Amino acid sequence: MKIDVIGRGNVGTHLCKALQGNADVNPVAPRTLDGIRGDADIYLISVSDDAISDVAENLKHRVNESSIVAHTSGTTPLSAISPLFANSGVFYPLQTFSKDVELDYIEIPFFIEGSSAEVSNILKEAAKAVSKHVYEADSENRKSLHIASVFACNFVNHLWTLSDKYLTDRGLSFDMLRPLITETCRKACRMRPYEAQTGPAVRRDTVTITSHEKSLAENPGYLKIYEMLTHSIMNNSFSHE
Amino acid sequence: MKIDVIGRGNVGTHLCKALQGNADVNPVAPRTLDGIRGDADIYLISVSDDAISDVAENLKHRVNESSIVAHTSGTTPLSAISPLFANSGVFYPLQTFSKDVELDYIEIPFFIEGSSAEVSNILKEAAKAVSKHVYEADSENRKSLHIASVFACNFVNHLWTLSDKYLTDRGLSFDMLRPLITETCRKACRMRPYEAQTGPAVRRDTVTITSHEKSLAENPGYLKIYEMLTHSIMNNSFSHE
Repeated sequence: MKIDVIGRGNVGTHLCKALQGNADVNPVAPRTLDGIRGDADIYLISVSDDAISDVAENLKHRVNESSIVAHTSGTTPLSAISPLFANSGVFYPLQTFSKDVELDYIEIPFFIEGSSAEVSNILKEAAKAVSKHVYEADSENRKSLHIASVFACNFVNHLWTLSDKYLTDRGLSFDMLRPLITETCRKACRMRPYEAQTGPAVRRDTVTITSHEKSLAENPGYLKIYEMLTHSIMNNSFSHE
Repeated sequence: MKIDVIGRGNVGTHLCKALQGNADVNPVAPRTLDGIRGDADIYLISVSDDAISDVAENLKHRVNESSIVAHTSGTTPLSAISPLFANSGVFYPLQTFSKDVELDYIEIPFFIEGSSAEVSNILKEAAKAVSKHVYEADSENRKSLHIASVFACNFVNHLWTLSDKYLTDRGLSFDMLRPLITETCRKACRMRPYEAQTGPAVRRDTVTITSHEKSLAENPGYLKIYEMLTHSIMNNSFSHE
């Protein structure tokens, strides 16, 4: 199978690596479309959301009617590109990609949508050659997954950044927290996270909360986040069963 | 070494298990002090912060002058108990404890403070029998560590809870995010978290951010957290070097 990957950001770079073993992969620069093949089976548009339409427009007259053109975004609907091509789809890998960090691709969940059942099947096969977690998801479900992943990954990493900075500013080291972080993650992967909740907010330990808020008074950014998330934990009623 | 552990919450329960291999450990009910020994070498008060003073008061006339009395809290200063005993200290394990979850105690960081260098050394030896991460930390540093751990552990787990609920409410499964969470954690343990940040906020991808905020409009609790943490990521200048 011939796959042209258009885009050289974090996702495009990793997709090339991931697909290489099982397909004939060709990386393509998104602006110029330099080196693009006229006869690829699949074109993956892996660029920022606001650039997808432009790339798709430029691509329109360069591809065979039988080819599949898919974007790799969690946010952009299929309808953003489907009017332009006979066969279109979405090929969305739900992972946090950093260019220099090696990944175990087999663990990356892929969410697939196709303009037809046939397109969907071809994209699913391409994903299954890489990963053991391949799902179908329409644009609405994909968006929900993307939003949930912003909370579960991007915001989580930012809280660690805040934590790191707080300790570093006080001559302490983030390394002291790494065992705690590892265990926090291990628990969330073994049970539902609401069952794993610990800390002053869920204990309603107002003595500790007040004392922390007093310490954070000089850091309004931290204080606001502390108050909001403490309040959210205290008001949570998230046992779903 | 004889150690009486006063308190049967998550921390007390795990401390008993952790210390058992290398010491003669005796669990004690905090209200009645039933079964307490008069001649223990160390008494560990492992109760909620607002109960530490009461337990310490009750303990005052039950222990030898040569014994060490230490609490296990990250928040309460040593001075809350030091006036009551000749030898006092803090024996703070920085970990997320759930009663039913097994732990690898050797990975738990312990933060120790003593009313004298001698007390400090004895508590450090007791901790080193359990863990390979034993530090001295005064009350101020311990409080900073505790605050940082609320961000890095309690708040992080809550974001996973929100994520879980968001997906479950839409017929999707939190399992779909677990590979992402595992990788997010793995990255934060290999590099500084500010280097690992991904997602729409750090990319300043306002198209995606606006689209997410529109979807979250029906969920004011989620929207407020989304806006606040997105803003915090965008205004972050956390490269510390």
